Amino acid sequence: MTIRQATRMQLIQPFHVMALLARARELEAAGRSVIHMEIGEPDFVTPQPLIDAGIKALQDGHTHYTPATGLWALREKIAGFYRTRYGVSIEPERVVVTPGASSALQLVLAALVDSGDTVLLSDPGYPCNRNFVHLLNGKPVAIPVGAANDYQPLPQQVSDSWTAQARALLIASPSNPTGTLLDEQTLREYHAITDQKGGSLIVDEIYHGLTYDGPASTALAVSDDIFVINSFSKYFGMTGWRLGWLVAPREVVADIDKLAQNLFLAAPTPAQYAALRAFDEDVLEILDERRDEFRARRDYLLPALRDIGFDIPVNPSGAFYLYANCSRFTDDSFSFTSRLLEEAGVAITPGIDFGTNRPEHHVRFAYTTSLENLQEGVQRLAQAL
Amino acid sequence: MTIRQATRMQLIQPFHVMALLARARELEAAGRSVIHMEIGEPDFVTPQPLIDAGIKALQDGHTHYTPATGLWALREKIAGFYRTRYGVSIEPERVVVTPGASSALQLVLAALVDSGDTVLLSDPGYPCNRNFVHLLNGKPVAIPVGAANDYQPLPQQVSDSWTAQARALLIASPSNPTGTLLDEQTLREYHAITDQKGGSLIVDEIYHGLTYDGPASTALAVSDDIFVINSFSKYFGMTGWRLGWLVAPREVVADIDKLAQNLFLAAPTPAQYAALRAFDEDVLEILDERRDEFRARRDYLLPALRDIGFDIPVNPSGAFYLYANCSRFTDDSFSFTSRLLEEAGVAITPGIDFGTNRPEHHVRFAYTTSLENLQEGVQRLAQAL
Repeated sequence: MTIRQATRMQLIQPFHVMALLARARELEAAGRSVIHMEIGEPDFVTPQPLIDAGIKALQDGHTHYTPATGLWALREKIAGFYRTRYGVSIEPERVVVTPGASSALQLVLAALVDSGDTVLLSDPGYPCNRNFVHLLNGKPVAIPVGAANDYQPLPQQVSDSWTAQARALLIASPSNPTGTLLDEQTLREYHAITDQKGGSLIVDEIYHGLTYDGPASTALAVSDDIFVINSFSKYFGMTGWRLGWLVAPREVVADIDKLAQNLFLAAPTPAQYAALRAFDEDVLEILDERRDEFRARRDYLLPALRDIGFDIPVNPSGAFYLYANCSRFTDDSFSFTSRLLEEAGVAITPGIDFGTNRPEHHVRFAYTTSLENLQEGVQRLAQAL
Repeated sequence: MTIRQATRMQLIQPFHVMALLARARELEAAGRSVIHMEIGEPDFVTPQPLIDAGIKALQDGHTHYTPATGLWALREKIAGFYRTRYGVSIEPERVVVTPGASSALQLVLAALVDSGDTVLLSDPGYPCNRNFVHLLNGKPVAIPVGAANDYQPLPQQVSDSWTAQARALLIASPSNPTGTLLDEQTLREYHAITDQKGGSLIVDEIYHGLTYDGPASTALAVSDDIFVINSFSKYFGMTGWRLGWLVAPREVVADIDKLAQNLFLAAPTPAQYAALRAFDEDVLEILDERRDEFRARRDYLLPALRDIGFDIPVNPSGAFYLYANCSRFTDDSFSFTSRLLEEAGVAITPGIDFGTNRPEHHVRFAYTTSLENLQEGVQRLAQAL
């Protein structure tokens, strides 16, 4: 018997890079060297003080559930971080600690999106975003974005894409895969539109902290009714711990709590205790050293890729990605990434994972490996091309 | 401006026991003693060898993502556990490690349920189950179950409730809130129906291991096309670590993997490394000692509650719950639980959290506290009633 699956299963694509990664592992197992420039997580291990705090939590027997919205002390610390880093005052009640930013995004969309509703998204953009909309039987609406506007939607595009079925605009700053930021003025313009239309603005700020030409603006400075998603994964280097957060408008927190109780019960407890240390001065120093290392990698990789023929028309100033036009080399970026892996031993992500806006002409480079590896990777690419 | 929420938000209820728990914490903060018989997690801390393994994982720097389906070594160990404990052979490929059983349930239902589809559920039953169906814009169909059939659906009820929109029957053994088990013959009968109807059978086995009158039957012995959900939370005592698993039919594993990549990325890494120790002999010995402690509590609490007037018509032989008819005392179990908290300092869960099948006449007792506390609780109840 064949199992009848839900319609959404045809709409949700696997990450194509996973097949590439599997092939890379095969090559490595066979003795080949592969430079990994496809991986979307920091290569650094979690900072030692956070590891130590996690160990202490386990030693102290913190192995039971926390409340669904997280440890109160952690919600307070996150609120405090907005005060000290951004000068924005957030009530801790509005902070919901989640099992990764993925779950924060799911909570927000589940609270807003009915079957048939639409959510406006940048294309290229983070692939999971549209799939969360499919989960809820909503319809993702892709707004094609390009270099001319720093790969972020023009306010006019948002207005034009908004229909009676639209519920929300979901954007990211810094964005994945393009690494570009939104300034506060643009966030205000987006918010004016969603507000006027009776919809919601959702801002993914999970790469905040990893910005190289000045700090990012938080949407929380713009309005209290914006949903902001953040994470301990990227800047704080806690990917595998699965911990993120959401700042929600006050009026929906009780409903978000209700959803979290049902969907997740709570975020991992040892991770929450470890994260209590995340905002301490000594940890922030480690994180900023790492940020500087990422900056040095970007400052190397960006001109180096341009030199060998990749067209990167903007200067990405956040996250750890470069989104490059590869049309000089190919009209099929997927085959191109396969070829580079096989022939050059360099793994990068094909554009197809990020949407339908000319993916065949784009690839994403992640600088989540050492400067030395990046140099070796560029050398291999130069030879292969 | 008021935020327009999705329709499902009106359909999803918060756990009413949470308000009771919050009130209990207030009373305790004010110096009152409260006996907690409402809490759905073991009072034991995670077994020390598992804590030690978690600490070791952190010391070794295992802080990055794992594959979406979990560490291969853990999938192998889980498969091996089915072989040694149940004599059932499962390919490790069919095991998907998840961030808690909650996420396993979400994956299965997301793979099966379209908007408007129905899922058949026991009433009373675990409240999150129907809310996962609401998440997907499906419709939970409650099958009223009673003591006459050990609080499990009659096969005839399943057939009668099955319509063209039905996609799955979701049942639990041992069940929450009633603590009753399903034998292999009944599982076979359920499976014959879902198979004949072209739907799926989903079996929640998260309380396996916590059975007091003999082992539970796993649905995996019945057929390869049944979805089985399990967890490291209850028997293994790892609630706060957020780790569970799913055994899926071979043909859907790739699709489940794709969903997991998008919805969760992966289960927490330190928890997965800790769980590699879960099936070792020394850990299983600790777990079975704890199981014996739970049995001793049940053997005390069951007759003691009957003695003071609660009607518990079946002998629950699993999980750590007793589902009691309280109609001798009240026609409003919710007010009744409030009164018992205020007057007797005993916290129990009102029937309303488990469905619409005479909840006003039922309460759930959890024996997740020491025998001494249970004795004190019963004494207080006897006085108050």
